[in-house]
Amino acid sequence: MKSQEGKYTTIHYQKYLKIEELLSAQVLRSEQVGDPAHEEMLFIIVHQVYELWFKQIIHELESVIRFFDDNEVVETSLSVAIGRLNRTEEILQLLVKQIGIMETMTPLDFLDFRNYLFPASGFQSFQFRVIECLLGLPEDQRLTYYGQKYSSVFTEDKQKTLDDIYAKGTLLDTVNAWLERTPFLELDGFNFLGEYKKALTKMLEKETKAIMESEYLTDKEKKMRSEMVGGTDTYFRSILDEETHNKLMAEGKKRLSYKATLAALFINLYREEPILQLPFQFITCLIDIDNEVTNWRYRHAQMVLRMIGHKTGTGGSSGHEYLAKTAMMHQIFTDFHGISSLLIPRSELPILPEGIRAQLNFKFNA
Amino acid sequence: MKSQEGKYTTIHYQKYLKIEELLSAQVLRSEQVGDPAHEEMLFIIVHQVYELWFKQIIHELESVIRFFDDNEVVETSLSVAIGRLNRTEEILQLLVKQIGIMETMTPLDFLDFRNYLFPASGFQSFQFRVIECLLGLPEDQRLTYYGQKYSSVFTEDKQKTLDDIYAKGTLLDTVNAWLERTPFLELDGFNFLGEYKKALTKMLEKETKAIMESEYLTDKEKKMRSEMVGGTDTYFRSILDEETHNKLMAEGKKRLSYKATLAALFINLYREEPILQLPFQFITCLIDIDNEVTNWRYRHAQMVLRMIGHKTGTGGSSGHEYLAKTAMMHQIFTDFHGISSLLIPRSELPILPEGIRAQLNFKFNA
Amino acid sequence: MKSQEGKYTTIHYQKYLKIEELLSAQVLRSEQVGDPAHEEMLFIIVHQVYELWFKQIIHELESVIRFFDDNEVVETSLSVAIGRLNRTEEILQLLVKQIGIMETMTPLDFLDFRNYLFPASGFQSFQFRVIECLLGLPEDQRLTYYGQKYSSVFTEDKQKTLDDIYAKGTLLDTVNAWLERTPFLELDGFNFLGEYKKALTKMLEKETKAIMESEYLTDKEKKMRSEMVGGTDTYFRSILDEETHNKLMAEGKKRLSYKATLAALFINLYREEPILQLPFQFITCLIDIDNEVTNWRYRHAQMVLRMIGHKTGTGGSSGHEYLAKTAMMHQIFTDFHGISSLLIPRSELPILPEGIRAQLNFKFNA
Amino acid sequence: MKSQEGKYTTIHYQKYLKIEELLSAQVLRSEQVGDPAHEEMLFIIVHQVYELWFKQIIHELESVIRFFDDNEVVETSLSVAIGRLNRTEEILQLLVKQIGIMETMTPLDFLDFRNYLFPASGFQSFQFRVIECLLGLPEDQRLTYYGQKYSSVFTEDKQKTLDDIYAKGTLLDTVNAWLERTPFLELDGFNFLGEYKKALTKMLEKETKAIMESEYLTDKEKKMRSEMVGGTDTYFRSILDEETHNKLMAEGKKRLSYKATLAALFINLYREEPILQLPFQFITCLIDIDNEVTNWRYRHAQMVLRMIGHKTGTGGSSGHEYLAKTAMMHQIFTDFHGISSLLIPRSELPILPEGIRAQLNFKFNA
Repeated sequence: MKSQEGKYTTIHYQKYLKIEELLSAQVLRSEQVGDPAHEEMLFIIVHQVYELWFKQIIHELESVIRFFDDNEVVETSLSVAIGRLNRTEEILQLLVKQIGIMETMTPLDFLDFRNYLFPASGFQSFQFRVIECLLGLPEDQRLTYYGQKYSSVFTEDKQKTLDDIYAKGTLLDTVNAWLERTPFLELDGFNFLGEYKKALTKMLEKETKAIMESEYLTDKEKKMRSEMVGGTDTYFRSILDEETHNKLMAEGKKRLSYKATLAALFINLYREEPILQLPFQFITCLIDIDNEVTNWRYRHAQMVLRMIGHKTGTGGSSGHEYLAKTAMMHQIFTDFHGISSLLIPRSELPILPEGIRAQLNFKFNA
Repeated sequence: MKSQEGKYTTIHYQKYLKIEELLSAQVLRSEQVGDPAHEEMLFIIVHQVYELWFKQIIHELESVIRFFDDNEVVETSLSVAIGRLNRTEEILQLLVKQIGIMETMTPLDFLDFRNYLFPASGFQSFQFRVIECLLGLPEDQRLTYYGQKYSSVFTEDKQKTLDDIYAKGTLLDTVNAWLERTPFLELDGFNFLGEYKKALTKMLEKETKAIMESEYLTDKEKKMRSEMVGGTDTYFRSILDEETHNKLMAEGKKRLSYKATLAALFINLYREEPILQLPFQFITCLIDIDNEVTNWRYRHAQMVLRMIGHKTGTGGSSGHEYLAKTAMMHQIFTDFHGISSLLIPRSELPILPEGIRAQLNFKFNA
Repeated sequence: MKSQEGKYTTIHYQKYLKIEELLSAQVLRSEQVGDPAHEEMLFIIVHQVYELWFKQIIHELESVIRFFDDNEVVETSLSVAIGRLNRTEEILQLLVKQIGIMETMTPLDFLDFRNYLFPASGFQSFQFRVIECLLGLPEDQRLTYYGQKYSSVFTEDKQKTLDDIYAKGTLLDTVNAWLERTPFLELDGFNFLGEYKKALTKMLEKETKAIMESEYLTDKEKKMRSEMVGGTDTYFRSILDEETHNKLMAEGKKRLSYKATLAALFINLYREEPILQLPFQFITCLIDIDNEVTNWRYRHAQMVLRMIGHKTGTGGSSGHEYLAKTAMMHQIFTDFHGISSLLIPRSELPILPEGIRAQLNFKFNA
Repeated sequence: MKSQEGKYTTIHYQKYLKIEELLSAQVLRSEQVGDPAHEEMLFIIVHQVYELWFKQIIHELESVIRFFDDNEVVETSLSVAIGRLNRTEEILQLLVKQIGIMETMTPLDFLDFRNYLFPASGFQSFQFRVIECLLGLPEDQRLTYYGQKYSSVFTEDKQKTLDDIYAKGTLLDTVNAWLERTPFLELDGFNFLGEYKKALTKMLEKETKAIMESEYLTDKEKKMRSEMVGGTDTYFRSILDEETHNKLMAEGKKRLSYKATLAALFINLYREEPILQLPFQFITCLIDIDNEVTNWRYRHAQMVLRMIGHKTGTGGSSGHEYLAKTAMMHQIFTDFHGISSLLIPRSELPILPEGIRAQLNFKFNA
């Protein structure tokens, strides 16, 4: 029930923050069924703090996705969205650092109560799974462990929550749709793709020539280097050819649509134009968050290695190896890394026609 | 009820960690009585995470104090104590970093729900107060705010908890008693204080002479510098004269007893002797924790300044100024800083008699 | 000589980075004139790393100031400026963390070579002074130490460099001028100050009433709290009255002009309007940098306390106390903290006329 | 020439730290041969700061290795060694954080001067290679890139420096020899290995029984879990059987000798005995440093991905993939992770005979 008279209501710090409920939620299993293990408190509190921060991250990600539901509003909300993604990144950095605190518990200390936790196996946070879904990790691109889907551990109820996230649209989906709406790719007789292709070809020729003429490189090095430079027929193909791109998408190797990828490239190249500054910041936030989640997974894998070593059965990889693999393979916004390969120096950039530049501009001081 | 047959019991991750209870403890006041404010979630979760970590810190500090109850055991427990204090320091570093996350909430965002929190004023964590008591902050050396004792906000019950901590002995008390038990200060005809005094006098004369003879310093600079070097009549006096020390203690300017101070100086000077290595580490941990709590208070003061500015009535200092003052003035183990002023270079150190060195030594490899 | 044909030139990693010159710049004084002290290497390298980062910070700050020289360009450069200030902040965070590395040197280790460094006293970085000047710290608001200006240690040449910075304009100067150019304060019959005053008065009355009617507060608490809320006659006065503001400026208590302060308040209150988003980010960056420099000074003061204690002559404060005071007193952009006190909740904000809103808006998606 | 009269010599801060030499070592290639690129300064300074810290790390690692040259001294130096390794770890943490600063340079900014750096390819620090050697990375276990040894880029002179490190003994070598000297493995009729084997077998049977009898696990899960528990015929085999261990060593899968591994296990299990506390801390430092170097490599790989994407020729993996692989594969002290798999809970530990306990003990307070 909302207060009618005004906003000034009375609360009490302890009650408002539910400190009592919070501080009675640490029940040491070792105290209940065996010999009290001092270190179990840390185990519980580290995981509970994770869950609180996960809730906060979900709160932020959901609010950002919601901005996109109403297309009109999104640009005026972009700075708010950026602020919330920046906060999410800072929280993730804290979570990475927090692993160092878990590591102050030595493997021998862990053994003092590990048996009491049986058969709970390590980290099974539903909220972390929700975060992966909200970001947009496709269900069928999850690594399996011993042939099992990780999801099998969740109840039907929880599985439905995950399904709903996919149904309503993930951050990846909404970002893709937003990029597709970028209006500047073909305007006023300016064909971005055509101009980019010309500039790119010129740049590649120049680079290859420089390598082949270098007096400091051996023939073998020249070969290697010119291969790394590539040609318009190697890794540039997908951006220049829609069909190739769509094939890679079908194979799960690309996640952004062809049009969205072009828009992301455009924003990256012309991000200093006033109207593209916030969109560029927004994309940068997505990469940052993606990287930080990857860092967390990697550090978590390292912690598991330190804590239980390479324990494994004969049938498969160790827990550590599985986790280390997910670190990279569960990254979501990898297409943006692809765009780094596609950039060309500012000095080689096609100059935008005045008509487009005017649309990209605004003035703060009259 | 303890399990009879063995330690292998069955638990469930979600239930064990009480995730449900935990995640239902965030009730946004703004949703209940007014317009939902997105940022209130952060406010609640940041404070709840603080409280969880405070509980962990209390768990560690209490366990370390308990080690000292049984005098015999303490040396074998020293490495465990050091481990737990190191962990405490790492947690405190995380809490300092966490302030940056709170600062992602802008002052205007805070205003969206600040009125709903009325009259809870800022940060009133009982557990933080418990931590200050456990470390050993004397009740009568607390800064007051607007003439009020901060403690007045706590219930009788809680006040009793604080009184009990002082009655049972704080970390400062137990460290003091432990230092007083150091057996090496007067052994086998070696008088530590006498030898130290001789070495000190020699060193001071040498330093002063060098300053006065320098051709690079003006007379004014020479005066300033030689004053900073000091003489046995300045900050060295309290270590050389028990009476002066006791007077400073009575005035609240020293907290460790004369004998404990001498022992701390001895450990600092001869810490490379094998048997003094862990005691030296232990003292270092206490300084580190003290510094980190100070850092946290200072950053917290800065955050308050940023969030509400210098808001204040006509009658006193602003919240920010009060908090910034407590940062330094609520430090506990300041006597250890004093010891830094008393050190003399290794090259000037009195050489320990063989008899004492043998007692300070042990061999890992035969 | 610039290459004529193109950009592809040949370099060598070691030579380009001048690794050899760099790695031969650590000459241990203790090795030259006495007993080699292992820890002196750390002392040198920590200070050299500081100097390298200071150079980078100066590079960034100067480039940001330069953007403002050409008034027209500044808004299109705002996102670049924000990026560079963000980087500066990250570097400063690293420098704060770096103090922890210096603290791995214990006071006794420091004594092993401290005498060799005589009479160089601690930290006298000219570049750090340049940074303070570039930010805008007024020369006459510097704390003195033992009655001496810190600057006396610099050569005439260096003093000229500092004078030139003030002459060409500091970051504070350029930010002030930029804020003064904000065109939205009085437009289309909208008088920002008048509308703000009305909203403010209404809010203050509501808050005070709520306090006085509360059944949970004692009379004493009511008095304290209503004083903290303030009235239009307390800290709000300077924003409502230009004369008061100018008086505070003359006393060195305000640094931004009246008009600039109004503009900063406007940007803070209406920062969600698209055209104000980058200006708001820019202001936030300035506060962040200011805070981080303050953190660094404070941590540096703590390190000095730890390393040499409260060493001091009879004539003045210890090095630690001096440094701790500068931490706060050398902050530059304190006026922005003042603005936090002046904010009013979004729900109470005067609604902008459509004409102004249209000017503040732009659309990314057509 | 050493000063004869005393230690007080006169220096000047700027000269002592060679500030001038240091600050003239940043020569922007883009300024010399083309259009000045603002961001090139960051590129140079980040790499130079790396090199300064690398020098410090080398300084610490070499000093720690030197302690072991004189067997007698090593135990009294253990706490100093631990201090220096802790410092090394803190420096490495700073270097990991520093990558975030490099990432404030966007890929497009990098393109502004990348061509000027041709053909220097990325990160070719000789000092980093020295660090890997000092830690003990075997030359033949380095990943190759495009079939080339990374080392081929170094001059003969530098290659000799590396060879000398291996010849004089790496940290891995000295740690191995030190562990082999542990005297407690077979003393007074106590056979550590035999007792450990008995305790291990008992524990494994108990764990497997608990899994097979659990009513909460499916048959498939039981199979998986009991495989992960293992038997004495899986990853325990190498510790129980010297021959297996030696075979794994020959294959490059183990690096510590059989005897050293047993000693490390013993120290881990009984580390609370006073005399084993510092040895245990020392081992923990080695793991920490190893992890932090791994973190740095991983974050560096991520940065490269972000900066240039998956650029690669047809002949091999991208730079990013190569670097990500080295992160894990160039870890040195992996055998200590193996020991985590071998631990058994304190409650199951064989009790040491009184004779051995007495030798492991010492008393600080009489």
